[in-house]
Amino acid sequence: MGVMRIGHINLRVLDMVAARKHYEEILGLMPAAEDDKGNVYLKGWDEWDKYSIMLSASDRAGMNHVAYKVESDGDLDELKSRIIEYGLDVEMVPPGTLPFCGRALRFWMPSGHLMYLYAEKEFVGKAVGVNNPDPWPDGLKGAGVHWLDHCLLICELDPPSGINKVADNTRFFTEVLGFRLTEQIMAGPDHTVQAAAFLARTTTPHDIAFVGGPTLGLHHCSFFLDEWADVLKAADVLGKNKVKIDVTPQRHGITRGATSYFFDPSGNRNETFAGLGYLSQPDMPVITWTEEEIGSAIFFHTGELNPAFTTVYTEGV
Amino acid sequence: MGVMRIGHINLRVLDMVAARKHYEEILGLMPAAEDDKGNVYLKGWDEWDKYSIMLSASDRAGMNHVAYKVESDGDLDELKSRIIEYGLDVEMVPPGTLPFCGRALRFWMPSGHLMYLYAEKEFVGKAVGVNNPDPWPDGLKGAGVHWLDHCLLICELDPPSGINKVADNTRFFTEVLGFRLTEQIMAGPDHTVQAAAFLARTTTPHDIAFVGGPTLGLHHCSFFLDEWADVLKAADVLGKNKVKIDVTPQRHGITRGATSYFFDPSGNRNETFAGLGYLSQPDMPVITWTEEEIGSAIFFHTGELNPAFTTVYTEGV
Amino acid sequence: MGVMRIGHINLRVLDMVAARKHYEEILGLMPAAEDDKGNVYLKGWDEWDKYSIMLSASDRAGMNHVAYKVESDGDLDELKSRIIEYGLDVEMVPPGTLPFCGRALRFWMPSGHLMYLYAEKEFVGKAVGVNNPDPWPDGLKGAGVHWLDHCLLICELDPPSGINKVADNTRFFTEVLGFRLTEQIMAGPDHTVQAAAFLARTTTPHDIAFVGGPTLGLHHCSFFLDEWADVLKAADVLGKNKVKIDVTPQRHGITRGATSYFFDPSGNRNETFAGLGYLSQPDMPVITWTEEEIGSAIFFHTGELNPAFTTVYTEGV
Amino acid sequence: MGVMRIGHINLRVLDMVAARKHYEEILGLMPAAEDDKGNVYLKGWDEWDKYSIMLSASDRAGMNHVAYKVESDGDLDELKSRIIEYGLDVEMVPPGTLPFCGRALRFWMPSGHLMYLYAEKEFVGKAVGVNNPDPWPDGLKGAGVHWLDHCLLICELDPPSGINKVADNTRFFTEVLGFRLTEQIMAGPDHTVQAAAFLARTTTPHDIAFVGGPTLGLHHCSFFLDEWADVLKAADVLGKNKVKIDVTPQRHGITRGATSYFFDPSGNRNETFAGLGYLSQPDMPVITWTEEEIGSAIFFHTGELNPAFTTVYTEGV
Repeated sequence: MGVMRIGHINLRVLDMVAARKHYEEILGLMPAAEDDKGNVYLKGWDEWDKYSIMLSASDRAGMNHVAYKVESDGDLDELKSRIIEYGLDVEMVPPGTLPFCGRALRFWMPSGHLMYLYAEKEFVGKAVGVNNPDPWPDGLKGAGVHWLDHCLLICELDPPSGINKVADNTRFFTEVLGFRLTEQIMAGPDHTVQAAAFLARTTTPHDIAFVGGPTLGLHHCSFFLDEWADVLKAADVLGKNKVKIDVTPQRHGITRGATSYFFDPSGNRNETFAGLGYLSQPDMPVITWTEEEIGSAIFFHTGELNPAFTTVYTEGV
Repeated sequence: MGVMRIGHINLRVLDMVAARKHYEEILGLMPAAEDDKGNVYLKGWDEWDKYSIMLSASDRAGMNHVAYKVESDGDLDELKSRIIEYGLDVEMVPPGTLPFCGRALRFWMPSGHLMYLYAEKEFVGKAVGVNNPDPWPDGLKGAGVHWLDHCLLICELDPPSGINKVADNTRFFTEVLGFRLTEQIMAGPDHTVQAAAFLARTTTPHDIAFVGGPTLGLHHCSFFLDEWADVLKAADVLGKNKVKIDVTPQRHGITRGATSYFFDPSGNRNETFAGLGYLSQPDMPVITWTEEEIGSAIFFHTGELNPAFTTVYTEGV
Repeated sequence: MGVMRIGHINLRVLDMVAARKHYEEILGLMPAAEDDKGNVYLKGWDEWDKYSIMLSASDRAGMNHVAYKVESDGDLDELKSRIIEYGLDVEMVPPGTLPFCGRALRFWMPSGHLMYLYAEKEFVGKAVGVNNPDPWPDGLKGAGVHWLDHCLLICELDPPSGINKVADNTRFFTEVLGFRLTEQIMAGPDHTVQAAAFLARTTTPHDIAFVGGPTLGLHHCSFFLDEWADVLKAADVLGKNKVKIDVTPQRHGITRGATSYFFDPSGNRNETFAGLGYLSQPDMPVITWTEEEIGSAIFFHTGELNPAFTTVYTEGV
Repeated sequence: MGVMRIGHINLRVLDMVAARKHYEEILGLMPAAEDDKGNVYLKGWDEWDKYSIMLSASDRAGMNHVAYKVESDGDLDELKSRIIEYGLDVEMVPPGTLPFCGRALRFWMPSGHLMYLYAEKEFVGKAVGVNNPDPWPDGLKGAGVHWLDHCLLICELDPPSGINKVADNTRFFTEVLGFRLTEQIMAGPDHTVQAAAFLARTTTPHDIAFVGGPTLGLHHCSFFLDEWADVLKAADVLGKNKVKIDVTPQRHGITRGATSYFFDPSGNRNETFAGLGYLSQPDMPVITWTEEEIGSAIFFHTGELNPAFTTVYTEGV
């Protein structure tokens, strides 16, 4: 019932040839389709729906929208009502508006990011199939990422003026979309300002995250790998291909996940993420990090944020 | 809404001193309580409820019951109705019947295993706390298992006589308790006999599993570890302590998980399991293994079941 | 000065097509040459000499000879004198007798295995080159083994009759060839029978090993992998290709290495070995295992030898 | 014959209490002795000699000397002659000059670092013993490092004035002490300036390294761990203890090793190093990195040197 998981993200890229090399040869996503507008659709080998990455050529990097999949078509009506009741504008767009998808709800998050919810997307199947499958397919390229795991959106935060789109999004996602808050960073003199929030619908530590910043943005989209050894291999692949790396393999305090950050050729930040984490559950108490420990929260090893981490990101609309 | 996860298993052990050494010193569970009947309660460092293992002294090994936690107290009423409607006997037992727990539903699975559902258990908290937590606590012992992950129950299967408690349990768990079938092994000439079933409520590959056998039994209960390297360390600890190992580190075809099997001093089989798996989802097609590939299904590397694996187990009631 | 490392092993295979698929596609050795007698030469990507595996078609499996490389041509004269002085027959064979190699010493070990020493083999270079090399090359196949690491030879052992070719080989290798004994298994009532010996010239735990058995044989040849995660990946590849596995990933007590054993299509046993070991040094005391602990010595996790491990092997001459 | 390996390093620390906590509780070295001058001696659990780290209280950080162990006492005479012949001053100091050691050669490297060679140090034994040993001991603390692996010394390099102590040391170590050059970084317009050199006596990629810099210094001393997973665990331990980390887990281009850099409380840089490397051999061609690729040479993932890496270090005399 309700939202299941992230379905896809529509990224804007400055150079489609370079982008395809990055996402296909280096990350190992598989080409799924290309439309007559030149959009390119890619999927992870472990995903069964048509695509999780939609690349659109543009003269500025960032994201156009992010889409989450709900369990059944009827959920869309139910969620539409709830969104309206919450006071947000929402529109039901017809099948095909989201390529290869059924009808979809279209709305702007309180933060201003464009979001879709859909229940149906063309089914393709995992690369390993469903009958006596191998644990992984032959012929994987590069890092061989499994699936699009989550995205982190930068939301406007300006405590003096009372603007906190992190908190606004969190309230909307928990009250309307049924997400659970798993972790948060609390800032301000009394730790009353929610400066970051991590929310889940699956039982992983997060399916979406919001972090406060000066402007609406896309911080990163993240791809799943099994474990720490795979994060090394992925970083080796990045090194071999001279991809710009932001953060070498490290552990997050938040989510406990193993991470490495880097940029696609357009400057969109990617993450390879292995979930050395926990089972998130409705009755698990929210984990709270205080602003003073934000370094450890994000990068547990160094306990320090590298400056680029919070200031360099691409546009969120 | 509904069942969240495995809550605990009540194991019978022949020698409580040896059992405590095994579960506390070797697996690294933490002592939580001991009652006046001599029952011992243990929890994983990453669990927040009072206990997930309840050890009861007995002259025969096996399990007394397994208990799953539901999201809210009201779910118990709803599930009670559904169980009755399905045609099974069920009883609401008062708080404290399950130690440290609120009221609970008590019933026998179609396979004859005793099961409880409860919504409340005394809260203790993770060993790392909820404020700026470390990724793991100091002072872990032995394998340092995170949590009780799932159990696998042997259910009576005798195709000639039409008895298939695997299928009976699967139907009950999916239709009444809301579990999703993620994987199955199909046997028989036309692959029409469901010889094993793996079911989930979380978005991991399984929270419970049923495998056909001659008699009702407990095949194993499984403890979570982060990754393959931790399975090695756990096996090292087992080797150092001369624990009887059934299966050395290997990968399951089913669930793709990294596994190692071994026995507690009473002969109850344990597993250390690292979920190198997939995100299970309502719209993920069921994975089906055919009997001819059962070796690869269970032990992907060898493709062979070791004989003891299916014939050696402890009693399920 | 003197012996540097294992240079190659000449294996007999029953079916060259199947053997090539096994060693090239599954283990990931690279084809180096094929001669007019149909011998096939293969090398690991991390080796710089022409080949480390020479496959010869035959109607019986096993090894023809093993060859070790010495540091300089002059070492051959010095070693020839020492071998003669020790009382063994030895012959200097001309360049090309060992394919792609310079002149070589040819002799039978005390155990009856045929051995060559050579100082020169055609140089090819590592797949990653020597200028700003990547840590590993693109396009690796299968397990992507790095190099031939060592071989284990079965030597006749019959204490009642006083025959102990393990001890005989050990004496010859240490006194004449300059190997260091790193570990041994001592059997018999007073632990006076050297039932297995592990010897090194490099500073790894072993470059050759001898284990007692009823008949002269080849127990296995072993291929190096970086670490435990690579042993998993290799075992996955074996599983995907339905290779017969003898022992799934496990840790040796002896050498502490991570291991997995399996058979080539002709029945020759292979090992993938990751050296989670120690630095072996001239002043490191010899590690001694007693017969009662032979299970832990070989397979530290289970502490048990599987019966096939000591009874199934191929011929050593 | 000749030098075997690094024996110990004598580090100066500003606060002995803090230093002991760092090296004993966090790195997991074991206390070996304390002398009446307040020097503290520590060893890795996998080392058999008395100590590999000697801590001396001082008001400035850095190293007093580094000592390498030779195979036999007679080697000292032989090496003394060679050093004199090479034109360096050298002195044979009596037993006990190096604490717990036999007589020793004392000399300054061409770079100005003080070095000792000794053949005997009090024997203690590995923590796991030599009879049926476990692969690792119980009760390890912190990162549980195995042994002191190597040190990297900053040597004066000023091409305009013709000063290149890297090359001077390399010549001395290869021609006199029998080290093999395994890798080097070549700088300058024609890549003729040896800006860094990595040398080995064991068959690992390096036992000592020299890197050019403005002043004589100690860049780091390095401690061995089995593999990548252990580097993560070590970094977790550092994070838990708020140790200042210089470089999070990453792969070196040079040596291919997995690395993490951090500082002891006095500012001496440490490394945890797992040798995902190669077998170094006398006939392995030297690997050469060009100055333009120095980023990838040192930090293969990012391909970038962090500024502190080359400018922050402690004193070398």
